[in-house]
Amino acid sequence: MRTTLVRNITTLVTNDPDHGPSPLGLIQDAALVIEGDRIAWTGRTADAPATDDAVDAQGRTVLPGFVDSHSHLVFAGDRTQEFNARMSGQAYKAGGIRTTVAATRAASDEALGANVARYLAEALRQGTTTLETKSGYGLTVADEARALRVAAEHTDEVTYLGAHIVAPEYADDPAGYVDLVTGAMLDACAPYARWIDVFCEKGAFDGDQARAVLTAGKAKGLLPRVHANQLTYGPGVQLAVELEAASADHCTHLTDADVDALANSATVATLLPGAEFSTRAQWPDARRLLDAGVTVALSTDCNPGSSFTSSMPFCVALAVRDMKMTPDEAIWSATAGGAAALRRSDIGRLTPGARADLAFLDAPSPVHLAYRPGVPLVSEVWRAGRRV
Amino acid sequence: MRTTLVRNITTLVTNDPDHGPSPLGLIQDAALVIEGDRIAWTGRTADAPATDDAVDAQGRTVLPGFVDSHSHLVFAGDRTQEFNARMSGQAYKAGGIRTTVAATRAASDEALGANVARYLAEALRQGTTTLETKSGYGLTVADEARALRVAAEHTDEVTYLGAHIVAPEYADDPAGYVDLVTGAMLDACAPYARWIDVFCEKGAFDGDQARAVLTAGKAKGLLPRVHANQLTYGPGVQLAVELEAASADHCTHLTDADVDALANSATVATLLPGAEFSTRAQWPDARRLLDAGVTVALSTDCNPGSSFTSSMPFCVALAVRDMKMTPDEAIWSATAGGAAALRRSDIGRLTPGARADLAFLDAPSPVHLAYRPGVPLVSEVWRAGRRV
Ligand SMILES: [Zn+2]
Ligand SMILES: [Zn+2]
Repeated sequence: MRTTLVRNITTLVTNDPDHGPSPLGLIQDAALVIEGDRIAWTGRTADAPATDDAVDAQGRTVLPGFVDSHSHLVFAGDRTQEFNARMSGQAYKAGGIRTTVAATRAASDEALGANVARYLAEALRQGTTTLETKSGYGLTVADEARALRVAAEHTDEVTYLGAHIVAPEYADDPAGYVDLVTGAMLDACAPYARWIDVFCEKGAFDGDQARAVLTAGKAKGLLPRVHANQLTYGPGVQLAVELEAASADHCTHLTDADVDALANSATVATLLPGAEFSTRAQWPDARRLLDAGVTVALSTDCNPGSSFTSSMPFCVALAVRDMKMTPDEAIWSATAGGAAALRRSDIGRLTPGARADLAFLDAPSPVHLAYRPGVPLVSEVWRAGRRV
Repeated sequence: MRTTLVRNITTLVTNDPDHGPSPLGLIQDAALVIEGDRIAWTGRTADAPATDDAVDAQGRTVLPGFVDSHSHLVFAGDRTQEFNARMSGQAYKAGGIRTTVAATRAASDEALGANVARYLAEALRQGTTTLETKSGYGLTVADEARALRVAAEHTDEVTYLGAHIVAPEYADDPAGYVDLVTGAMLDACAPYARWIDVFCEKGAFDGDQARAVLTAGKAKGLLPRVHANQLTYGPGVQLAVELEAASADHCTHLTDADVDALANSATVATLLPGAEFSTRAQWPDARRLLDAGVTVALSTDCNPGSSFTSSMPFCVALAVRDMKMTPDEAIWSATAGGAAALRRSDIGRLTPGARADLAFLDAPSPVHLAYRPGVPLVSEVWRAGRRV
């Protein structure tokens, strides 16, 4: 296989603790070698081996492509006016998520696929090389299965979220909806998905319902993840740990027991600061989680209702400013943390054998992701060994 | 002169109240005609006149190029570690602004010019078509004059800020430094600058010193603007109004009398949310200013110490989320507001006779600048009638 050297990298983020002291495994004046779609070597430019080709990074920073482990991209419809009214303090008769459900059901397969492709491409330009996405705006057997089929055409990380809200048709029969989600809908959806997720929250699904959903999914071979403790205290985080979910997402309202449970588990706490930003909500206490030893991931939650950003650099800047993460912690969480939340060891790091997913920053240090907020610093992206 | 039609604009922001009800003067399904470097016509695509050329906006939003009326781009040196330590809660023996002064004095003319050009280009890609910038990291006669000469090669909006801090050499003789700033330094700097500015703040220049600086500048034909009431309450805002300054910048700590003074003046309050973001400081109360009838501008304050963003879209998103401006208010303040802060009527609006400075957004509405925070939505920029 052809080998390519990328040299003249001012700062290389490997996320390999062997290159410590930072968990980012920083190498200065660095280079890396790509063989096919994989990283073959990293080190100092001066020590680089001979390769077939060579590329000059021109002093930029290179880090692993961002791993965005939580998004909702299979949607249609427009909610700009709902956002505008919320931020302007105006009354607005918003249908909220149901607006998106109605528009998504009415959309063609082609329109839904184009929407996913559009935001995936937008995220890729901003350095995101792996992006999970979910169903959850269909809420019928056919519409959920269709959403997952469409998603699976664009990404490997597909999550069945039939249990996003109780479908409007089942408003008077939530138990009947849980039966559907764990029965016929699950049967139709499982072939397209790797993950199963549930919105465990007052007004959505309680702890028992969420357990039923996740347990049924596990029995079908899906791996659990949970929308947990976003708007209120609740059983979501404990349930995630109990069922060995890969990730408990949001984690805004946590008791000490919740934090302890996470710290003593392999469940990642995925924080989604775009949601707090766009709803003017309380920030999750990232410091408390990190200080307790919890593994933290950062993700966009990209969706048209509560967090319509696809920008992982923006989430890093918020995590530092408003969630008191250090720049190093935020950068790790947006790359290696996301990989952990997806139980992936081939991404989120630039170590020999890992996939050659690279984000080039027009900056001498990855700290600039927080130091230069809002500035589009990602100037080049490689995925699986190829510039995209 | 050749005329060019830009058609198929989903939403056009003119900032012409005649197109109300919003002060943004929105036109849907819009078009505009450019003649030379000027806007000749705006209206509905269906009503557009015949032109020599035509361009399809493909449904995007078009707004006036952002007017960033406050930045500090004539600098050298790196303060990444200072930022990193501040945000990580680590002790760091930072020289603060003096670090930048030392590096700026040591830099070549070419290095300073390249720095200004770099950040101007970065801002332009993000839709900023007019950018003010200041001296203030030289603090000697020769270094301040050089900074302004370099700045004037890149922008028309150049501000003499010899009174940024007391030069280190005058630490024991601040009165002597004020004499220099109002004497020999002013003489050397005035030919290159349009504006004079002073950092009126505890530890920098008090009200009497600031008055002396601005009055001397006015006598030399420079127009005043003031860094006022950023870190503490103080006389800056009242002084700005008294001296008919174009703008009082920062305005974080205001008494009711300060707000009244601004409301009864032609002085714009320029808010710089990037500074509060990057120093975790208290947000200025934009709502209080707007409700009192004060004209508000938004700007980046781009500088390597306290606000290293060049992104006006980011400032708009912060203004909405954290300063409680409506999206419409924030968009107006980032365009027409900036123009008012620079006493310019030819920019910040897209009305017949105005300069044809256009930012194209890959979005159906300008609200997306707040709705999609961090996403680089500006996909095309025109300056003085030409795509850049
Ligand atoms: Zn979600
Ligand atoms: Zn300033």
